[in-house]
Amino acid sequence: MREQGMLIVVSGPSGVGKGTLCNILVSKVEDVFLSTSATTRLPRPGELDGVNYIFMSHENFEDKIKKGQFLEWAKVYTNYYGTPKDVVIKKLSEGKDVILEIDIQGAAQVKKNYPEGIFIFIAPPSIEELEKRIIKRGSDTKDSVDLRLKCAKEEIQAAFDYDYVIINEDLDTAALMLQSIVLAERCRVSRNKKKLLEIKGGSQL
Amino acid sequence: MREQGMLIVVSGPSGVGKGTLCNILVSKVEDVFLSTSATTRLPRPGELDGVNYIFMSHENFEDKIKKGQFLEWAKVYTNYYGTPKDVVIKKLSEGKDVILEIDIQGAAQVKKNYPEGIFIFIAPPSIEELEKRIIKRGSDTKDSVDLRLKCAKEEIQAAFDYDYVIINEDLDTAALMLQSIVLAERCRVSRNKKKLLEIKGGSQL
Repeated sequence: MREQGMLIVVSGPSGVGKGTLCNILVSKVEDVFLSTSATTRLPRPGELDGVNYIFMSHENFEDKIKKGQFLEWAKVYTNYYGTPKDVVIKKLSEGKDVILEIDIQGAAQVKKNYPEGIFIFIAPPSIEELEKRIIKRGSDTKDSVDLRLKCAKEEIQAAFDYDYVIINEDLDTAALMLQSIVLAERCRVSRNKKKLLEIKGGSQL
Repeated sequence: MREQGMLIVVSGPSGVGKGTLCNILVSKVEDVFLSTSATTRLPRPGELDGVNYIFMSHENFEDKIKKGQFLEWAKVYTNYYGTPKDVVIKKLSEGKDVILEIDIQGAAQVKKNYPEGIFIFIAPPSIEELEKRIIKRGSDTKDSVDLRLKCAKEEIQAAFDYDYVIINEDLDTAALMLQSIVLAERCRVSRNKKKLLEIKGGSQL
């Protein structure tokens, strides 16, 4: 087992398919833990507390901000989203890779605090395609769709500060790319120095 | 199509399985071109000129060295090995990723001339396991096996200068790791700036 896991931030515009890709990753690759965000927004149909999100009141969320209990948090539109710090730190120390599926604002905060994290940007093939997907998802009003698209154009600029970009045109291909990035990063020499020393020193030749 | 391919150097001790891994990679991933090395050593049974190696005389090889026609070359034990420059440059400019499966000395030369290359070290799970594999391959005398193993211990030290290390314990896993590194590197933001600008600017919003 590895001594320390990797912190992997998966971000991108709203509606781009981050959640689906992260769920596929967790189902296919061992020792990957998907962090559950906390939010003050209302559950969508079918969403479960503690599974999709940790749903909490505005009051409770703001109290935790004051106590410094979030790895990152952001107010997006009218709601708070954030990553509770304690579970992430614990999983990393157990050698698990922790995936944070978070918005661009949150990712920028994590980058400031954890520059050694791996930052992956999920981009739509085009703004037009993103619009179709958000409308198809059906959870946004017309005004909300327009706001999300306006933000998306600005948000794509943020991709230039990331390590990797995956253009989510075909889901299977995008999922393979995400898996590949995680597996490749595990092969970095900087993460395998101890193993290399063992191999080198393990012989009596 | 990408404008410029990646130069990917796969190296490691003799007998570690570099060749097998590179062949699997080429069969599984599109737009990957395996460079054929030139050598002055004699063909092993079943090896074909222009397929496994470009076999050439010592005289011919030394003439090409003088003319600067190798990307890297090295004298290993008693024979020359080298990578003819022209084909590699052409394939990279066509947007193909070029794999150089070369020894440690050659890789060090490429690193000096092409620091933007991707350097992957294939390591054995242990020196003892490497010994078994070299003996099993059956193409070396007892003295030659001993020499290869002595070099291997020194060569593993070189891994610390590489970008990635793959420990070739299980062939399928190692092949997946090699594929993952190539696919992940294609997702680097630095290699996708043009695409990102297109996505960002492609809307009339």
